[in-house]
Amino acid sequence: MSSLKIPRTIEWVDGKVRILNQLKLPYKLEYIETSSYKRVIRAIKKMEIRGAPAIGVATAYGLALAVTKIRIKNLEKALKKLNSIAKEFMESRPTAYNLFWAVNKILDAAKTAKNVDDLKDIVVKKALEIARLDEECNRKIGEYGEKLIKDGGRVLTICNAGSLATSYYGTATAPMYRAWEKGKRFEVIVMETRPYLQGARLTAFELKQAGIPVKVITDNMIGIVMRKIKIDLVVTGADRVTKDGYVINKIGTFPLSLVAREFSVPFYVAAPFSTIDFNSTIDDVKIEERDPKEMLYIFGKRIVPEGVGGIYFAFDITPPDLVTGLITEKGIYKLPIKI
Amino acid sequence: MSSLKIPRTIEWVDGKVRILNQLKLPYKLEYIETSSYKRVIRAIKKMEIRGAPAIGVATAYGLALAVTKIRIKNLEKALKKLNSIAKEFMESRPTAYNLFWAVNKILDAAKTAKNVDDLKDIVVKKALEIARLDEECNRKIGEYGEKLIKDGGRVLTICNAGSLATSYYGTATAPMYRAWEKGKRFEVIVMETRPYLQGARLTAFELKQAGIPVKVITDNMIGIVMRKIKIDLVVTGADRVTKDGYVINKIGTFPLSLVAREFSVPFYVAAPFSTIDFNSTIDDVKIEERDPKEMLYIFGKRIVPEGVGGIYFAFDITPPDLVTGLITEKGIYKLPIKI
Repeated sequence: MSSLKIPRTIEWVDGKVRILNQLKLPYKLEYIETSSYKRVIRAIKKMEIRGAPAIGVATAYGLALAVTKIRIKNLEKALKKLNSIAKEFMESRPTAYNLFWAVNKILDAAKTAKNVDDLKDIVVKKALEIARLDEECNRKIGEYGEKLIKDGGRVLTICNAGSLATSYYGTATAPMYRAWEKGKRFEVIVMETRPYLQGARLTAFELKQAGIPVKVITDNMIGIVMRKIKIDLVVTGADRVTKDGYVINKIGTFPLSLVAREFSVPFYVAAPFSTIDFNSTIDDVKIEERDPKEMLYIFGKRIVPEGVGGIYFAFDITPPDLVTGLITEKGIYKLPIKI
Repeated sequence: MSSLKIPRTIEWVDGKVRILNQLKLPYKLEYIETSSYKRVIRAIKKMEIRGAPAIGVATAYGLALAVTKIRIKNLEKALKKLNSIAKEFMESRPTAYNLFWAVNKILDAAKTAKNVDDLKDIVVKKALEIARLDEECNRKIGEYGEKLIKDGGRVLTICNAGSLATSYYGTATAPMYRAWEKGKRFEVIVMETRPYLQGARLTAFELKQAGIPVKVITDNMIGIVMRKIKIDLVVTGADRVTKDGYVINKIGTFPLSLVAREFSVPFYVAAPFSTIDFNSTIDDVKIEERDPKEMLYIFGKRIVPEGVGGIYFAFDITPPDLVTGLITEKGIYKLPIKI
């Protein structure tokens, strides 16, 4: 089908889950193969797997692993068990809306089960469907979004809303991959994206695998780069889009949107409908604060003097008026989406 | 005089120059002691010493070292030699306006020499004066700027426009040090400032030495931090301010100014008059591009896949309308300054 040489992010293989360990990229391709749902939760928490859609798929597969191991014969008790495991998943990354979305899809499907064997069958099938639909979704995002990419142009992106953040093809990268497959040629500039450097490590990795020219900049370089180098399009992913049109995405997204506005560069967000939270406004969203240690050390080396602390908000808030459009599997929308 | 326990950045000791090696901070206090002007140039190029005013002082001391070694007896030939060494300094960091300023001060003074011995005496005295005036200047900046700092408030800064960037006391930090000495209590948030992490390594170091509470954030966190935490004042340094009021400073300064405007946080730049280039407009300024290797590796480890390159502009451009005021040794000015 596609000739992009990008490794699979997460797969269901013979009743086990195989996860590409993203903390090891771009240095080595190392996989986590597990039949334990707790190991999947750990992978989500440790960010061995990350990216909203990929976390959704991991959650679905994790629940599938959990359900296949249930030895209870009573359906009601089995469902109760599944619900409590679902809660464990929901506590792993509070900002990842796709995680909740995946949990709900699985639990809704589970309700239709007639007995415990049926339950196992239904949950595994649903999880596989979630993964498949994710890729289909991304390919549709690519179809709508590729029109925004100029042949001979230059695109800027942040973090990794790429194939590695999804089951395949990515969200922000989908328009790039589709445009490339259609024969357009362009360059991509990626912000390194501290503290985990997903831009430098992951997006640069997968774009290079796909053969697309890519250059990395530090996060603080966005202003001077847009002033000195022509950027035709900014496209980012989203971890969550609220009912009132706010985009929750990687830190750095909001300053990037301000700089894009300043230089009249179109600023698009690419995300599947499953990322849109039609039940919450921005006031309901809790921005995940993580352990500052994760940003005070780089490659195990402390970057600040002993005794100095840090602050680590993991996500940014970008208001709807700064977003040119939201590229979804159903088309491109102005924010907030009216339905 | 001051009870701030901050080590001296650069000193003239018994005819030699002693430079605190800032690449080793905050891990160890290591000094470079040299009588070779070429070693001083190397220190500037390698960024063992950095910060516009400190580079100015290093240049002055470097020229003093050079002149004391001149063995030519003919004044005209000695001056020619000094001029050619001055050129070597001017090529080391093209964006550092204070470097050119210091060169001119030294060369102007040199012109008054009556013979070669006199020349040596004049240049050394002038260099010592440049260092002394730099500190005096900063203390005056502190006096004007401390009024902007709220007791119980919170200040945000970028990079290191601190004592370590000057002979002492700093520019952006001067208002903080003065306010602290006067008994005001406040917290400082510092952007880590990739790629060299001067904020995390240097500003956090010297503020901690001075006893001022400090927290570090990644550069991309400015948006969410200003949204979630009350910031009362942003103050940055400047490497150069043009006649038409543009501020050339560390990458990240421009996005920071945009975010500050968005949240109505006052955005001040602190810099001595020697930083103002009354001969150039922004169109005359060449933004230094450095070897991308400097940002593609952190602590010697490559952060991007093999075969992927980067872009490294070292400075940002912030237009005058985004700057609330320029804090100088002569008072606080709106940009552009009319004189």
